[in-house]
Amino acid sequence: MTRTLLEQEIYEQPAVLDGLLARETGAVSRLAAAVRAANPSFVLFVARGSSNNAAVYGKYVLEAFTGLPVALAAPSVATYYGRLPRVGGALVIGVSQSGRGEDVRVVVEQARAQGAITLAVTNDPASPLAAAAEHCIPLHAGEERSLAATKTFTAQLGVMAMLAAHLSDDSRLQDELSRLPDLVNDALTLSADVPGRAERYRYMTQCVTLGRGFNFATAFELALKLKELTYIGTTPYSSADFRHGPIAQIEEGFPAVVAAPSGAVFEDMDGLLRELERRRAELIVISNVEEALAMAQTPLPIPEAPEWLSPIAAVVPGQLLALGLAVAKGYDVDHPRSLQKVTSTR
Amino acid sequence: MTRTLLEQEIYEQPAVLDGLLARETGAVSRLAAAVRAANPSFVLFVARGSSNNAAVYGKYVLEAFTGLPVALAAPSVATYYGRLPRVGGALVIGVSQSGRGEDVRVVVEQARAQGAITLAVTNDPASPLAAAAEHCIPLHAGEERSLAATKTFTAQLGVMAMLAAHLSDDSRLQDELSRLPDLVNDALTLSADVPGRAERYRYMTQCVTLGRGFNFATAFELALKLKELTYIGTTPYSSADFRHGPIAQIEEGFPAVVAAPSGAVFEDMDGLLRELERRRAELIVISNVEEALAMAQTPLPIPEAPEWLSPIAAVVPGQLLALGLAVAKGYDVDHPRSLQKVTSTR
Repeated sequence: MTRTLLEQEIYEQPAVLDGLLARETGAVSRLAAAVRAANPSFVLFVARGSSNNAAVYGKYVLEAFTGLPVALAAPSVATYYGRLPRVGGALVIGVSQSGRGEDVRVVVEQARAQGAITLAVTNDPASPLAAAAEHCIPLHAGEERSLAATKTFTAQLGVMAMLAAHLSDDSRLQDELSRLPDLVNDALTLSADVPGRAERYRYMTQCVTLGRGFNFATAFELALKLKELTYIGTTPYSSADFRHGPIAQIEEGFPAVVAAPSGAVFEDMDGLLRELERRRAELIVISNVEEALAMAQTPLPIPEAPEWLSPIAAVVPGQLLALGLAVAKGYDVDHPRSLQKVTSTR
Repeated sequence: MTRTLLEQEIYEQPAVLDGLLARETGAVSRLAAAVRAANPSFVLFVARGSSNNAAVYGKYVLEAFTGLPVALAAPSVATYYGRLPRVGGALVIGVSQSGRGEDVRVVVEQARAQGAITLAVTNDPASPLAAAAEHCIPLHAGEERSLAATKTFTAQLGVMAMLAAHLSDDSRLQDELSRLPDLVNDALTLSADVPGRAERYRYMTQCVTLGRGFNFATAFELALKLKELTYIGTTPYSSADFRHGPIAQIEEGFPAVVAAPSGAVFEDMDGLLRELERRRAELIVISNVEEALAMAQTPLPIPEAPEWLSPIAAVVPGQLLALGLAVAKGYDVDHPRSLQKVTSTR
């Protein structure tokens, strides 16, 4: 049976991460030393879509390990209201698979003119975004032919993790980082049967995705993959924001995809899982913790990982669930309706 | 017929804004002068739920008018990963109706210990949050007895608008601000029949809410009100992010609530409306522009307003739509299931 482009690219992820670490660790280390010397007062990410989900992960790992506060840009302030805020003292990072998002490039260009340190994280080092930034970390993911981003998303997360490990100059983090390709490989092995198990959700029309801390970004990316590939209504939340209102929506059988790997926020996620179980929600749980998986109608096990790297493993069964569900619903996963590979917004 | 607490509080909004401007303009002006003198390198908001939607509005108006970059805090970095990023050079603003959110207070407290200028925006000046911050702007909204925040939300937006007008020291903005109570009053007048028109959506189970720029926050608040009061699955998007994937979900009859007042981003929103019309989406349009309203199955007119203040008018028909839909679905709007007035998350 011919594998779809999407499936092929999901399975390329360990090799892409391996290549990224091999080819860019030196460059990231040198860039990090220069950034530490320049001592920016904060970091600003500029991104859209899956790349913005990678930036959300970047915010958490940079804040937790480097002490740098991180903001996510509102590009419309620059592109419509005519004024990029004062970011001359910042490190400004544009993230874009194609490097061809107009709004992302404009913000990076204006930031550079203000004197900011600028970095492009893109799969195309010949793109306008790469040209606009002073520095560029290429993803080396190879051409992404599937419309839904998978290998470029995990590669972007890999770059964020590398930046955190080298900006904090923490050798423990750098050691842990070297295990990333194996971690994703193990996640793929554990998830081999996930596409087949997606059938249960053939008639699901909506769900929520939940995560917290480093895995807040996982909730966003799981929601986006499900929307792009299966067209179901999916809203991502942090467990905290979810408790502030949206939890009212949960009734018997309402499906929740919950990323709950072990770590500092596990207790909070576990408490939420128990609350959802009490409300008889349908639970799809991504975790390495037995007791969390035991609460799920659909347990999606992942390997044990350092909490900060767990999002890169946790997204894998989610990608395969979205793939399997799209197939079960009879959709063409390589040509989802209404999407183009390059979406340029102002 | 007895009016629900929710309806009463929706109609109190012009008076609350009037009182807020009368009682706090002097204090905001003095605080703004002190902040300008201290010259912070950025602003950090800390908030949850509706208050976080107010902070999103705050980000746009502060960035557009003061040039200060604005970040939204990820409280879990401080509360679970044990490290608040370096914010000693920032203005840190905690926003909470009750002032009793644990995570918001912790971040403000730690920021103050680092030397940041700290401000609490809360309806309870005797709350722990108000005590933790150096400065406090009370909302003067009176007790909010309905579980869904309405008058405290628009009052929080009012404080954000006041901060923008005084931090930028722009007398034109300050003049425009004085029209705010009338603007909201006019929005209420124009929206008198909205609750009755909500019946059309009795069997709606999900929708999206869309906005951009200053009205990005409107999309978030509309989604939250619909979720809290009617339990339908509602996801908010900026028009730009929506085009990067989620638009795939739109098919014939899929409902979209679109905030599209006149202003710099109108052309972009208008283009999106045309695209949604082409896909035969069901359009609920909040606008003062005739051609935008004409595309809607359910037009929700609002008064003409300066674009930066339009969110405070645009949310009003949305509140009444959520109210009317909850009634049509047979729900108790003053006691939505699963919600408490004070949600304390760590």
